[in-house]
Amino acid sequence: MTGYNLEAIEAAPLKDDVDIVIPTIRSLDFLEQWRPFLQHYHLIIVQDGDPSIKIRVPDGYDYELYNRNDINKILGPRASCISYKDGGCRCFGFMVSKKKYIYTIDDDCFVAKDPSGKEINVIAQHIKNLETPSTPHYFNTLYDPFRDGTDFVRGYPFSLREGVQTAISHGLWLNIPDYDAPTQLVKPRERNARYVDAVMTIPKGVLYPMCGMNLAFNRELIGPAMYFGLMGEGQPISRYDDMWAGWAAKVVCDHLGFGVKTGLPYLWHSKASNPFVNLKKEHKGLHWQEDMVPFFQNLRLSKESDTAAKCYMEISKMTKENLTKVDPYFENLADAMVTWLEAWEELNPPVKNEACDDKPVKKDNGKDVKAK
Amino acid sequence: MTGYNLEAIEAAPLKDDVDIVIPTIRSLDFLEQWRPFLQHYHLIIVQDGDPSIKIRVPDGYDYELYNRNDINKILGPRASCISYKDGGCRCFGFMVSKKKYIYTIDDDCFVAKDPSGKEINVIAQHIKNLETPSTPHYFNTLYDPFRDGTDFVRGYPFSLREGVQTAISHGLWLNIPDYDAPTQLVKPRERNARYVDAVMTIPKGVLYPMCGMNLAFNRELIGPAMYFGLMGEGQPISRYDDMWAGWAAKVVCDHLGFGVKTGLPYLWHSKASNPFVNLKKEHKGLHWQEDMVPFFQNLRLSKESDTAAKCYMEISKMTKENLTKVDPYFENLADAMVTWLEAWEELNPPVKNEACDDKPVKKDNGKDVKAK
Repeated sequence: MTGYNLEAIEAAPLKDDVDIVIPTIRSLDFLEQWRPFLQHYHLIIVQDGDPSIKIRVPDGYDYELYNRNDINKILGPRASCISYKDGGCRCFGFMVSKKKYIYTIDDDCFVAKDPSGKEINVIAQHIKNLETPSTPHYFNTLYDPFRDGTDFVRGYPFSLREGVQTAISHGLWLNIPDYDAPTQLVKPRERNARYVDAVMTIPKGVLYPMCGMNLAFNRELIGPAMYFGLMGEGQPISRYDDMWAGWAAKVVCDHLGFGVKTGLPYLWHSKASNPFVNLKKEHKGLHWQEDMVPFFQNLRLSKESDTAAKCYMEISKMTKENLTKVDPYFENLADAMVTWLEAWEELNPPVKNEACDDKPVKKDNGKDVKAK
Repeated sequence: MTGYNLEAIEAAPLKDDVDIVIPTIRSLDFLEQWRPFLQHYHLIIVQDGDPSIKIRVPDGYDYELYNRNDINKILGPRASCISYKDGGCRCFGFMVSKKKYIYTIDDDCFVAKDPSGKEINVIAQHIKNLETPSTPHYFNTLYDPFRDGTDFVRGYPFSLREGVQTAISHGLWLNIPDYDAPTQLVKPRERNARYVDAVMTIPKGVLYPMCGMNLAFNRELIGPAMYFGLMGEGQPISRYDDMWAGWAAKVVCDHLGFGVKTGLPYLWHSKASNPFVNLKKEHKGLHWQEDMVPFFQNLRLSKESDTAAKCYMEISKMTKENLTKVDPYFENLADAMVTWLEAWEELNPPVKNEACDDKPVKKDNGKDVKAK
């Protein structure tokens, strides 16, 4: 009844609607292995660190590359909102993209195999996740009801079965799990070998730790809230770029009525970063997350905030009001959030935004996609 | 750091702490296949329908059996709260048990195999689920952090890692999925062949459709809220017994700070019930669930309700106040909920209850179980 025929999507993986954003400090040899799945997509490479280093990109890939000099030139003084020497610089790529969907991936990630031995097409799965509805208001015990071969179970109200439009698809990782430094230190040999064959909606009102390693989102719906913060050189904190973006974006999705999914697709995360270096980078974050998470859990946005940009502006104000007492850093972060929004608007000028705004937001795309 | 050594539990599956409750109208030949896993446990069989029918139980099983005459004799006029000709009669078994844990299973369910071909020990998995904490306040993207080989991921606040005590473990079904009649009619051939290797906490504030086919719970924590309602003969509704119990028990768990898990273990559900018969039984429920679910979603219990019984009494009052306008049936249901509580107290007299109440409720058993 609600099964969704995904063949059409698999045959046409929306290559003109997706940009792949890769933050890096090195040559992108890892893309060789990804050719079957990523070569037909356009890449936006955000080069972190020393701009004089030449990044090599495998032949056959279509890409644009931005180093720090480019970012400074394009954004001028507003470039201050883009992190330096931190993976959070990737959000510059979200800003310069003009596509509907962003897929962002780390350069130490490789193609994983499903239990049958088949190589996993990460993009195809993320697009399935984003193009089918989410169900944030009630939990379906057989997981994603829009997957072929499954449905809503007995006791699922019919009024909730159309679901809501999906804004974020959070993929997972085999091999090296995404642990913090203390857990890395305690469990240096732990590897994730378990393939959980599920995609699920993270319910409304529930927060999760969003990892930027294998992440896709609908830029039109949620782009302005996908700011990866002020991290890295010159800042007291690193490795919380994706967390900050994930908490804020989830609150915005909940407020605007969009869905967030997690689960498939998996990729293969090859290399654990140094836990001692990580501990130095994240030790303030480990402490501050005890305040950041309750802050986002209790955050309520006003009815006037009816776009991702307006919501994010409101979150900036609340950050300053509520988190500056934790550390003065949050005042800088709040200011950077405003700068980010200004830069976003500059690169995505009102003409385009208005065109988007005029389109009625299809919060509920169940009807359209469910017909078989 | 948080891995939980489950070997001790697997070796000693708490057979003196678990009763298995089976509602049935026929001989229990299905138990032959379950011998390796269930034979060492005590059974409470609740015979539905004609009490003169002789139920055959395979040799070697230790059991007590109650038919309608027994229920009437034991409960007297209060027997009216126990459904007749509906699987909801199983809750009588919850009431007469004196064990800590209940596992309840339907008699058309058989042993399933995991993807490696190994037969699944449902009880062992349910006990693992119940004896390890739940994490209802924040979503862990690698699912159950207390399973061996996994943990809390980066960005999971340390203050939330101890979790809360688990009250309910909801298991799933391979082969025939638990669909309502309309979905059965539309998808008569759909079978669940997907084994999702995960257990997860259903977050606080989120409701789900609890199915009674493969269900375990901590009777001491949540027993009085596990009332399967007034269904079947003489009532306008059937097949919502487990749903009603699930919604109420989840609200009570959320209020008291207990956790609810869903996922593993799977069993093999052999036979789809007749969709036309089901449609007749459940058509009012399909309509009423549009009011019942929002009712439970918006229900807020008072601070004074600090036990499952007190919570359930409060829900009874709210049912009468809020749902009687949907149908007069809910007034009868609300009264039956009070009768159920009276009967529960009669069979589980204050001496025992007080002893239980005096024990400080270990809402957070993380510390105890996490040591390796």
